[in-house]
Amino acid sequence: MKIPWQEKPQTCNDVVWRYTENPIIQRDAIPSSNSIFNSAVVPFNEGFAGVFRCDNKAVQMNIFAGFSEDGINWKINENPIDFKAADEGQVIGDYKYDPRVVFIEDRYWITWCEGHNGPTIGIGYTFDFIEFFQCESAFLPFNRNGVLFPKKINGKYAMMSRPSDNGHTPFGDIYMSYSPDMKYWGEHRHMMSPADFKDSAWQCTKIGAGSVPFLTEAGWLMFYHGVINTCNGFRYAMGSAILDEENPHIVKYRTQPYLLTPSELYEQNGDVPNVIFPCASLQDLQEDKVTIFYGAADTVVAIAFGRISEIIDFTKKNSL
Amino acid sequence: MKIPWQEKPQTCNDVVWRYTENPIIQRDAIPSSNSIFNSAVVPFNEGFAGVFRCDNKAVQMNIFAGFSEDGINWKINENPIDFKAADEGQVIGDYKYDPRVVFIEDRYWITWCEGHNGPTIGIGYTFDFIEFFQCESAFLPFNRNGVLFPKKINGKYAMMSRPSDNGHTPFGDIYMSYSPDMKYWGEHRHMMSPADFKDSAWQCTKIGAGSVPFLTEAGWLMFYHGVINTCNGFRYAMGSAILDEENPHIVKYRTQPYLLTPSELYEQNGDVPNVIFPCASLQDLQEDKVTIFYGAADTVVAIAFGRISEIIDFTKKNSL
Amino acid sequence: MKIPWQEKPQTCNDVVWRYTENPIIQRDAIPSSNSIFNSAVVPFNEGFAGVFRCDNKAVQMNIFAGFSEDGINWKINENPIDFKAADEGQVIGDYKYDPRVVFIEDRYWITWCEGHNGPTIGIGYTFDFIEFFQCESAFLPFNRNGVLFPKKINGKYAMMSRPSDNGHTPFGDIYMSYSPDMKYWGEHRHMMSPADFKDSAWQCTKIGAGSVPFLTEAGWLMFYHGVINTCNGFRYAMGSAILDEENPHIVKYRTQPYLLTPSELYEQNGDVPNVIFPCASLQDLQEDKVTIFYGAADTVVAIAFGRISEIIDFTKKNSL
Amino acid sequence: MKIPWQEKPQTCNDVVWRYTENPIIQRDAIPSSNSIFNSAVVPFNEGFAGVFRCDNKAVQMNIFAGFSEDGINWKINENPIDFKAADEGQVIGDYKYDPRVVFIEDRYWITWCEGHNGPTIGIGYTFDFIEFFQCESAFLPFNRNGVLFPKKINGKYAMMSRPSDNGHTPFGDIYMSYSPDMKYWGEHRHMMSPADFKDSAWQCTKIGAGSVPFLTEAGWLMFYHGVINTCNGFRYAMGSAILDEENPHIVKYRTQPYLLTPSELYEQNGDVPNVIFPCASLQDLQEDKVTIFYGAADTVVAIAFGRISEIIDFTKKNSL
Amino acid sequence: MKIPWQEKPQTCNDVVWRYTENPIIQRDAIPSSNSIFNSAVVPFNEGFAGVFRCDNKAVQMNIFAGFSEDGINWKINENPIDFKAADEGQVIGDYKYDPRVVFIEDRYWITWCEGHNGPTIGIGYTFDFIEFFQCESAFLPFNRNGVLFPKKINGKYAMMSRPSDNGHTPFGDIYMSYSPDMKYWGEHRHMMSPADFKDSAWQCTKIGAGSVPFLTEAGWLMFYHGVINTCNGFRYAMGSAILDEENPHIVKYRTQPYLLTPSELYEQNGDVPNVIFPCASLQDLQEDKVTIFYGAADTVVAIAFGRISEIIDFTKKNSL
Amino acid sequence: MKIPWQEKPQTCNDVVWRYTENPIIQRDAIPSSNSIFNSAVVPFNEGFAGVFRCDNKAVQMNIFAGFSEDGINWKINENPIDFKAADEGQVIGDYKYDPRVVFIEDRYWITWCEGHNGPTIGIGYTFDFIEFFQCESAFLPFNRNGVLFPKKINGKYAMMSRPSDNGHTPFGDIYMSYSPDMKYWGEHRHMMSPADFKDSAWQCTKIGAGSVPFLTEAGWLMFYHGVINTCNGFRYAMGSAILDEENPHIVKYRTQPYLLTPSELYEQNGDVPNVIFPCASLQDLQEDKVTIFYGAADTVVAIAFGRISEIIDFTKKNSL
Repeated sequence: MKIPWQEKPQTCNDVVWRYTENPIIQRDAIPSSNSIFNSAVVPFNEGFAGVFRCDNKAVQMNIFAGFSEDGINWKINENPIDFKAADEGQVIGDYKYDPRVVFIEDRYWITWCEGHNGPTIGIGYTFDFIEFFQCESAFLPFNRNGVLFPKKINGKYAMMSRPSDNGHTPFGDIYMSYSPDMKYWGEHRHMMSPADFKDSAWQCTKIGAGSVPFLTEAGWLMFYHGVINTCNGFRYAMGSAILDEENPHIVKYRTQPYLLTPSELYEQNGDVPNVIFPCASLQDLQEDKVTIFYGAADTVVAIAFGRISEIIDFTKKNSL
Repeated sequence: MKIPWQEKPQTCNDVVWRYTENPIIQRDAIPSSNSIFNSAVVPFNEGFAGVFRCDNKAVQMNIFAGFSEDGINWKINENPIDFKAADEGQVIGDYKYDPRVVFIEDRYWITWCEGHNGPTIGIGYTFDFIEFFQCESAFLPFNRNGVLFPKKINGKYAMMSRPSDNGHTPFGDIYMSYSPDMKYWGEHRHMMSPADFKDSAWQCTKIGAGSVPFLTEAGWLMFYHGVINTCNGFRYAMGSAILDEENPHIVKYRTQPYLLTPSELYEQNGDVPNVIFPCASLQDLQEDKVTIFYGAADTVVAIAFGRISEIIDFTKKNSL
Repeated sequence: MKIPWQEKPQTCNDVVWRYTENPIIQRDAIPSSNSIFNSAVVPFNEGFAGVFRCDNKAVQMNIFAGFSEDGINWKINENPIDFKAADEGQVIGDYKYDPRVVFIEDRYWITWCEGHNGPTIGIGYTFDFIEFFQCESAFLPFNRNGVLFPKKINGKYAMMSRPSDNGHTPFGDIYMSYSPDMKYWGEHRHMMSPADFKDSAWQCTKIGAGSVPFLTEAGWLMFYHGVINTCNGFRYAMGSAILDEENPHIVKYRTQPYLLTPSELYEQNGDVPNVIFPCASLQDLQEDKVTIFYGAADTVVAIAFGRISEIIDFTKKNSL
Repeated sequence: MKIPWQEKPQTCNDVVWRYTENPIIQRDAIPSSNSIFNSAVVPFNEGFAGVFRCDNKAVQMNIFAGFSEDGINWKINENPIDFKAADEGQVIGDYKYDPRVVFIEDRYWITWCEGHNGPTIGIGYTFDFIEFFQCESAFLPFNRNGVLFPKKINGKYAMMSRPSDNGHTPFGDIYMSYSPDMKYWGEHRHMMSPADFKDSAWQCTKIGAGSVPFLTEAGWLMFYHGVINTCNGFRYAMGSAILDEENPHIVKYRTQPYLLTPSELYEQNGDVPNVIFPCASLQDLQEDKVTIFYGAADTVVAIAFGRISEIIDFTKKNSL
Repeated sequence: MKIPWQEKPQTCNDVVWRYTENPIIQRDAIPSSNSIFNSAVVPFNEGFAGVFRCDNKAVQMNIFAGFSEDGINWKINENPIDFKAADEGQVIGDYKYDPRVVFIEDRYWITWCEGHNGPTIGIGYTFDFIEFFQCESAFLPFNRNGVLFPKKINGKYAMMSRPSDNGHTPFGDIYMSYSPDMKYWGEHRHMMSPADFKDSAWQCTKIGAGSVPFLTEAGWLMFYHGVINTCNGFRYAMGSAILDEENPHIVKYRTQPYLLTPSELYEQNGDVPNVIFPCASLQDLQEDKVTIFYGAADTVVAIAFGRISEIIDFTKKNSL
Repeated sequence: MKIPWQEKPQTCNDVVWRYTENPIIQRDAIPSSNSIFNSAVVPFNEGFAGVFRCDNKAVQMNIFAGFSEDGINWKINENPIDFKAADEGQVIGDYKYDPRVVFIEDRYWITWCEGHNGPTIGIGYTFDFIEFFQCESAFLPFNRNGVLFPKKINGKYAMMSRPSDNGHTPFGDIYMSYSPDMKYWGEHRHMMSPADFKDSAWQCTKIGAGSVPFLTEAGWLMFYHGVINTCNGFRYAMGSAILDEENPHIVKYRTQPYLLTPSELYEQNGDVPNVIFPCASLQDLQEDKVTIFYGAADTVVAIAFGRISEIIDFTKKNSL
């Protein structure tokens, strides 16, 4: 498996840079889609699998499986994932969006925003990206951006999430919760708040976990989104955070500057302008590479690259 | 009279497709204009006439007559329509915008949004697009998007409209009203509500009648706009509805998917980004063609094409 | 018929004074009622009849007939008015509230706030207060406080109303509309706006027609409500207006000071504190007396008295 | 143990009636208190114990233990409950309010609204009302009105709660959640929504569980609060619901009318006018009596009485 | 001169207690008045003079002079103060409300809320309470609650104020500004912010200077108002603060608990329920007495008493 | 010194035209910058100096000095201006943005938006653009867009500003204030309000002073911004005003049409779309030229040109 990669342009002074052929997935990549964005990928077999948010032309939200050999060219199923009940009591939701995927122990776990009289965190799993099972939702509404850790922490599953309201939530902190069994959740801990306007305005309105964290020597490295409420609407940018290895609800470092902010036309124009929304990363620790997948303008999927060591270094040196 | 037309591109799978030379009317098509959009056209003599919303550079709203031989290249008068009083009691409004035009019996009726201590529906008529007469407004404020049917229904004039409030109305249903004389209105019937977010999010905030309906074998076919309230503002898209021939306040079918959504730069950028707002159509029933006129981004006028039979078929098969 | 009356207390310097035994109708005057308020009365036979807003204990709104010999002690039916369709096309509403009653020519007309996907003006009539007929609603939503004139004006029925929105409307002007037949309405005229905060703050947020106007030598005399939006909610007070006899949409005089403002415990405490809401008056022109019926705190019905000549004089001398 | 009781007045036709000596606890019952309200009681030893919400004169919210022999005259501790950590990981909250108390198996469990960067549901227990232990909070913020069932359901603890936002929440449904161990929670089920405005307006804005349910032959009987948003603020009234014995997240009946609405001066005047907020009940099934404890106007504690059989009957016959 | 006084009731444990005959000024104390509240008094000749906010029955706001021998029984002029221009450039305002009065050097200075396209701080003076002069307003809009110090600080006039917005301001801090000449103002210093909700909720929304500070051995003692935004509107209570003698923009102590909160019917009922708004105090340092004048429910004037030494002690011991 | 210049294109009929190579300063012109916009320039030595708003990648706002030989190619310092205290009492603010620069008598004065518990007007000066001194802020919060006149008026400094609130202010008028010493400010005069929606909608929400006025034969000529609140956010355009020479708070003329409105991609796309925000002009009275500097889309700096005589003529002929 080789993750997608492109070297940094010589004129670029930033630690993260865009793929020159962005967006890698167009809004009409499947016949029914209005837009494809905020999607997650993982290594799978010799290549990659992913779970994609495709809104159809009625702007109904659902998640779809897809596959790729190189991580750049994707074949997305034309029908949404058809979950089977993992459990007798499973509740079928009103809609599904913003998936994340992570391999833990023996299977691929998927989390997403699930409609249950308002948004909350749906959980499901697959072994093969063909057959999918839906479990109990993790929390009461209203919640969004549930992101699992790729291994148990002190014997328990760990999930970040962002308690929300039932609209265009104008606030938002990241919390951690733990579970012995992926069914019952507790030990809720507050992790991160938005920054003060005067310290880091791009993340002063709300923040939410983005990609599945991966372990580095410095701790868990995660990409997250931050939002500022301008007089012309919300603007979403991306930062990074380093979490304590043993107690990942402890944030050790977190970028005061953003790593990426909307500045290309495909990030500035679309169904919701000025949005960069990371949902996954692929990393090659040995080659010191990471490829970040993000939704752009709630319309397309794009990728960006970075050197893990540089990002860690930057996060430490520019911590809020 | 031949309506404007361009065949569907081979790569297009949609039932409605854009004109490749859009926008057909630029924002500065007349010297005083800041923007020209949300305008209506009808067949007239050998060619076409139209009533155009031109906001001037003080962003005052008014409506202007214009003429075209081919429906694409338009000559718009440099001065707004100067209405004469049709009636002693006529009230002169504060502003005029978003006109529709329809021929009934012996004359061209024009409806528009009329300022009368808030927006309501203005009514006027012309025989020749040279001399214009203004009648009593149809309703009390607050109302927008008044669209007349092209013939009397059970002996009465019929008008759709959308009761509103005095600002950026965050709700909106379509109602029908009837009148024996174009002066007094009653028999108000509720026609269509916004869709549920989970069923058809593009039209979940408000909807409004767009083009003048025309009669097909399936019933009256109308294009309407639907709005979703995103965290970055309202987005306007277009759908179609089929209304009962005898009782047109009965909606028989209505598209769950949109037919057009803002995705070209001239629809995504402008005075109000992400707006597609249909106000008229030209149809050739024998050739099975329809050409839809819509305002784009509250800045310019664009057109799109479709086969009537395909649109009817699509509307029936994809009905909400 | 003698209208209810009590002489002015010697210590009172105001032109309108309260009945000492207020409220005349308690919130639980019928077994099912949560509250009885905003109700209308007329002379009927030897005594009086009325239409009462009684919200039941589920807080569903409906209107009930009632009778009284003296105008003070009322017997209200325990069941709401059961309207028959006056017309084949009549639409049954979601709820009914805030009735007004007026005798025109041969029958008693009732107007009220009718639920039709939002509030609008319902119309019905009765000859005997036993059998009731419901007609077409007058207007499109959203509207409240429809008040008819007691005779035709220039051959047409005349109704005041207040265009509203679908919530706790924070604005509101009074308009006049005319109809040849009580079915189709038009010739809408703007009558009165809220006052400037600095000129007459008690009526600076919205105003609405209250009682049915009656003709005096000075013109039509009407009591209306005005609202101020304080930091602790809306406060409703009462003023008077004199309208032109021939063209009653012309307001000749209108009190800058209120005539009554909430200051008794039954006006300050209740389901909606600080509300005085007039819906009817009984007048004896020969005796120069008027008795005003008003809802207090959205909970009970109260009355107040005045000398017509004094009120006219006051209105002229203290006009806005 | 005899629960507080007073027979129904002969003039009363309602199923629930107030104690004539209300309020039973004044706002200044302890020296530091600004107000004492929204409090819970249980049988304890020969008499009763309770947990009281006392806001001090800095309007800081905390909960206090208290004792009574007759359930009417209470002695409340002058210092708030000093919780010990039940668990190493326990988080100390910012504030505590609106407690409920219930005996399950071997101890008295207390739930309350706990400040944890926003309101959520705190959990603690005591064996003796002298020594108290605080556990992990049940849920992520934002949540209020957590009410436990008095026994395990299918081997699990069951708790109702109302997901909220971080302000004066203008919406609110009741959900059920289950836990094997009082620490991790899942199996979230939607139970009850606010009613439609036209069906039962007193509960059309939000609802929340009130008293601890108790088992009757008809199922679990619970008193809950419902809220309407008037133009002068929120008004809180009380209804009852009957829940399925085996699957208590299934609501079998629920009153369309309220049982109590603010109509006494101590309910209409206070720190937050027009509030009736039930938090507990004492019942004597053999004597067919229930005594409901409720906070009035966010200022004092009051009680009301009813016959259990009558309430069940009323709830069934007047179900929404 | 003896200030109004009544000894503390034996049952009272508070440092401030109300006058048993409150309110001392009724809403209709002059013929034109709707309400009289938020008013200021000073010793004058052998007795007292005051400036009173009297809203008339058109709810127009203005300020009136008044006189009293004992500080309790007041004779208020029936006409508002008629200011002469102190200066050629003086701007006449739209309205006047919430006056404060203070004697500095040779004259009585009056400050108030002045309408100048929005509220700001008006300034005037009198030598005799007969002839009044209006100066330039102190600040740009939007501002309220301007309170002068009774002597110059470091050679300059000193004024506290609360920057506001043009509506029911939902925020508000107290600032100090200085002026060499009562005409030009600068050296703006931030003094006090609202408290955190969890520390002192009664003053968590906004605060504003109340009475003119007077010098004690502990520093300047001032009474101020604090506001909490409940779901039923703003509630205004009163606290005290001790300011540094030399640099009075330095707040040394400030009560975490309130001194007075609305709990009498005349404070809970009125044009704006639940308001206590102090605007003045009279003090007798030798007798260790202070009498506080406050507006109640935006309707009447009331007074309360305290021992200066006890208040200072309480403020120090219960400081935020 | 020659100001930047480009002749009007032949196809242009407007009085102001854009530079063809806009934007002249890119968002990443210095390594740390996220965006550079809303900046001011003045003639300095043989060329030009400027003060630039550069938001860094944490979106912290600060102002930076820069220099240019031709007014088009700028070298901006990589570190923000490091102000020294001009005065012992100077308060250091939370942030700095939107600078203006003007030479008066012997030095360059800089004004900007200064964070002091909310935005207000900061004042500083320099003699050489190397050493900078910060003075007392001019006003209490909340204020923005403070613009000084280039010479004293009647012996006093004169500054325009726009009183604001602490968020995305939805209102805003321009006021004038005067000061004898740049420290204490008074004599506040209202200058200009937003226009009525129906008269000039582009400036109907708020307006603010833009460039430093310069004296012409017609009076002071200033460019200002006007804002309309669309359903997709605020749109900022530019107009001109002519102020009375002697009493510059008297507005003699003011353009009803805008001079520039967002219509290029760099004005329509960026951190805040649809913004044109003028902060400075360079003029050559002899050559009848003016070059206007404006921020575009809160992201970059652009320039536009005009003939002074034409602008004056246009302003007079098209005055509101």
